[in-house]
Amino acid sequence: MVDIAARVWNHKWKIDPIVRSLIDTDFYKLLMCQSVFRNNRDTQVTFSLINRSTHIPLADLIDEGELREQLDHIRTLSLARGESTWLRGNTFYGKRQMFRPDFMEWFETLRLPPYHLERVENQYELTFEGSWPEVMLWEIPALAVLMELRGRAVLHEMKRFELQVLYARAMTKLWEKIEQLREVPDLRIADFGTRRRHSYLWQDWAVRAMVEGLGEKFVGTSNCLIAKNRDLEAIGTNAHELPMVQAALADSDEELARAPYDVLSDWHEEHDGNLRIILPDTFGTDGFLRRAPDWLSGWTGIRVDSGDPEKGAEMAIRWWQDRGEDPRKKMVIFSDGLDVDKIMELQAKFSGRVRVSFGWGTLLTNDFRGLVEDDRLAPFSLVCKAVSANGRPTVKLSDNPNKAMGPEDEIARYKRVFGVGDQEKMEVLV
Amino acid sequence: MVDIAARVWNHKWKIDPIVRSLIDTDFYKLLMCQSVFRNNRDTQVTFSLINRSTHIPLADLIDEGELREQLDHIRTLSLARGESTWLRGNTFYGKRQMFRPDFMEWFETLRLPPYHLERVENQYELTFEGSWPEVMLWEIPALAVLMELRGRAVLHEMKRFELQVLYARAMTKLWEKIEQLREVPDLRIADFGTRRRHSYLWQDWAVRAMVEGLGEKFVGTSNCLIAKNRDLEAIGTNAHELPMVQAALADSDEELARAPYDVLSDWHEEHDGNLRIILPDTFGTDGFLRRAPDWLSGWTGIRVDSGDPEKGAEMAIRWWQDRGEDPRKKMVIFSDGLDVDKIMELQAKFSGRVRVSFGWGTLLTNDFRGLVEDDRLAPFSLVCKAVSANGRPTVKLSDNPNKAMGPEDEIARYKRVFGVGDQEKMEVLV
Repeated sequence: MVDIAARVWNHKWKIDPIVRSLIDTDFYKLLMCQSVFRNNRDTQVTFSLINRSTHIPLADLIDEGELREQLDHIRTLSLARGESTWLRGNTFYGKRQMFRPDFMEWFETLRLPPYHLERVENQYELTFEGSWPEVMLWEIPALAVLMELRGRAVLHEMKRFELQVLYARAMTKLWEKIEQLREVPDLRIADFGTRRRHSYLWQDWAVRAMVEGLGEKFVGTSNCLIAKNRDLEAIGTNAHELPMVQAALADSDEELARAPYDVLSDWHEEHDGNLRIILPDTFGTDGFLRRAPDWLSGWTGIRVDSGDPEKGAEMAIRWWQDRGEDPRKKMVIFSDGLDVDKIMELQAKFSGRVRVSFGWGTLLTNDFRGLVEDDRLAPFSLVCKAVSANGRPTVKLSDNPNKAMGPEDEIARYKRVFGVGDQEKMEVLV
Repeated sequence: MVDIAARVWNHKWKIDPIVRSLIDTDFYKLLMCQSVFRNNRDTQVTFSLINRSTHIPLADLIDEGELREQLDHIRTLSLARGESTWLRGNTFYGKRQMFRPDFMEWFETLRLPPYHLERVENQYELTFEGSWPEVMLWEIPALAVLMELRGRAVLHEMKRFELQVLYARAMTKLWEKIEQLREVPDLRIADFGTRRRHSYLWQDWAVRAMVEGLGEKFVGTSNCLIAKNRDLEAIGTNAHELPMVQAALADSDEELARAPYDVLSDWHEEHDGNLRIILPDTFGTDGFLRRAPDWLSGWTGIRVDSGDPEKGAEMAIRWWQDRGEDPRKKMVIFSDGLDVDKIMELQAKFSGRVRVSFGWGTLLTNDFRGLVEDDRLAPFSLVCKAVSANGRPTVKLSDNPNKAMGPEDEIARYKRVFGVGDQEKMEVLV
C-alpha cells in the first residue's frame, strides 16, 4: 500500500533539506558555545570555508541557487522543544544540567546569523561574521551542506539500480570495516563524522550499524541529533577554535604565549573527568606540552588530531611520565584521518600503555571511495574555520604544516612565540 | 509517516506466502501444460521431489508445519482475472492467443491437486499424484517453496543490519556480474531462475536489475508473473517431462525409441519459430540427433542442458552441417549451471558460429554463496520430476549420469534402446 499522504507531503517540499535541526551538529560545538557564551559573548569573529582540496571545483559542481536554498533553510531553524528538553534534561558525560539555564534560554531563541556567499573562479567563498557564539554554530552545518550537495550532484546522474547498488556497496564496505573492528579487544570508538558525512541518513545508518555490529565497543556519536534520536552518548570536548580565537585576541607576545593555557584554565573550572581532554596541537604539540602548567598534567587525556599519531601519543606518554603521572590511567583519543588499518595499528601499539580511544570521522561516514567512476564521491578536505577575531587574523600551526593557516607574518610570529621548529608535512586526505 | 493500515494488514497474515499466484511459474510449464491438456489429459502421473544434494538435511532445516502451510496456501490459489487476461490477450513469441480458449477455461477453474508429504530421516518425501496437466504445475512452486523456506531458516537467526548487509552484498555480487555481462557483445540472456530462486522478491529484483543493467541484451524472464508485472517477454519452450512421460507410456521398445520424436512432432504442429527448440539430452544427445527425422533439423535451435556445453554445441553444429543446414542461422540456448565466466566463455566460443542465447538460472536468482557462515545460503540441487506415468516408472539418462534417474533395469533398457554408451560424469552444483 502506498502511503499517499506521505508521498504528497514529500512533493510539497521545495527542497530536500540537508540540515533539519540546530542540534544536527557536533556536541563539542555546543559545549564550546556555552563557554564562549559565558566568556567571550561579544567577540566578533569571521568563520570561513576553506577547501583544502583545490582540485575539487566546488562552484562548478554545486549550483549556487541550491546552495543558497540550503543555507537559507538552516537560517529558518530554531531549537525544537524536544531538543531543548533533551539538552536540559539529559546526562552528558555523567553530569546532569551540563547546559546552564542562561545558555539554554539564549539558545532557544537563536537563529543563525547571515552568511556571505560569493563565487570566485571555480570555488565558493563562504563566510560568516558576527558574535562568536552565533557564528561558530555555522561550521558543522555549512560543511555538511557543501559535502552533501557535491554528492547529490554526482548521484543525480545515476539510475535506480545503479543507485541501489552504490549504497549496497557502501554498506558492505562499512560493514566489513565493522567486522574487522569487532575483533579488536578493548576497542573504544565513537562517530566523529558529522561535518564531512555523505548525508544525514547515511551517517544515521553508519551509527546504527556500529551499534549493532560493535556493541559496547561503540561509545557514542558526536552528532547531538543522532545521539538524541538513537539514545546514544553524545561525545566531544573542545576544538582548535578556542585557542585560535583566544590567541588572536592577545595584545602581546606574552599574552599570546599564555592564551592556549588560559583557554584550558577556563575549561578546567567548568568541566572535569572525561571532558578534561587536552587538544595540544593548535600551535605545535611539542612546545605546548613543554611549557604546560602542572595542573594540566592532571587532566584525563589528550586528543591527537594532526601529525604522526604515533609520535603524538609517544610525546604525550613521555610528558606524563616526566610530570610523574601514570600514562596507563590517561586517555589518548586519536581523531585524525582514521581508517580501520590505522585504528587497529594504533590500538595494538598503545593498548595497555594508555587508555586508547578513537574518534572516527570521514572514513566512517563518507567512505564512498572507489564506488563511482573517477571517484567523484570520494570525500575531500573541506574545513570551516575562525579566520579572524575582533578584526585580527587567527593562526593555526598544527603538527602538520599542510593543516596550518593564517597570514605568513603571523605564522612566523606564532612559530617564534611557541618555539615551533621544523615540522613534517603529511598529506591531508580528509 | 508510517502507513498504519499497511502495517496492520501485514500482521494479519498467518503466514508470509512464498508463492502468491498460479502464474508465479515458468512459462514453458504453461506451454507444455496446454499440450498435455490436449494430448494426454488423462494420463496419471506422479511427480516427486528429489534433493540431489543429500548433505542438505531439508527436514532438519525446515519445519514440517511451515512447509505444509506454504503448500496448503498454494492449493488455495486460482488464476486471477488479470492473470487470465494477460495469458489470453498477450503476445508470446510474436503470437497472439497462444493459449487456446478451452485450455484457458480449464486453467481458470484449476486448483492444484493434493500433495503427499512425509519425513524420511532428515529429508522430505514430497509427491504429487493425479492427472498430468494438474500435477505438472506443482513442480515450480514446490521447488520455490522448499528453497525459500530453507533460506528463511537461516535468515531467521540474523540481526537487522546483518540482514541489510547480506542483501547489500548479494546485490553487489549480482550487479558485478551484470557489469561484466554488459561488456559482452551480442549477448542474449534470459532469466531461468524461478525454481531455485532465493525468494520471489529477490528474483524480481534480479530481473529488474538485468533490465536496467543489460538493456536489450536481456531478452526476458521465464517467470510469468514477473513478465506480466514488469512488462517483459515470457521465455521458455519445453522440458524433459514431455519425452520422459511419453517414453514411459510406450508399450514396446519400438514405441520407446520413437517417443522423443513423437513428442516433438506434436510440438511441431502447435508451434513455430523460436518455440521450435530441441531439448535433445533426455536420453542422450548423441543418439537423439543421429536418429532424428529430417524435419527436426529444420527447427530453430537446440537447448544444451546437461553434459559439457561446448561438446553439446559442437555436436549440434556438426549435426546441422551433416543435414545441410547453416548453423549460423540456428540458435543454441545454454541453460545448465551457468555463471558469468561460463557465459562469457561460451559466447566467445560460439558467437558468429551459431545464434547464441542463455537461460541463466540459479546463479542469477540465488547466488548467496560465500555470504553467510558455513555457506548455509548456498543454492543446492533440488528437482521435482515426473517419476511415473500410468503406473510405469519414468527414466532420464541426460548427458550427465549424475542427472540420470529411474530404476536400474529401466535405465539399462533405455540405454540399449537409445544406443547410449559411456558418459562423462560432471558435478551438479545447482
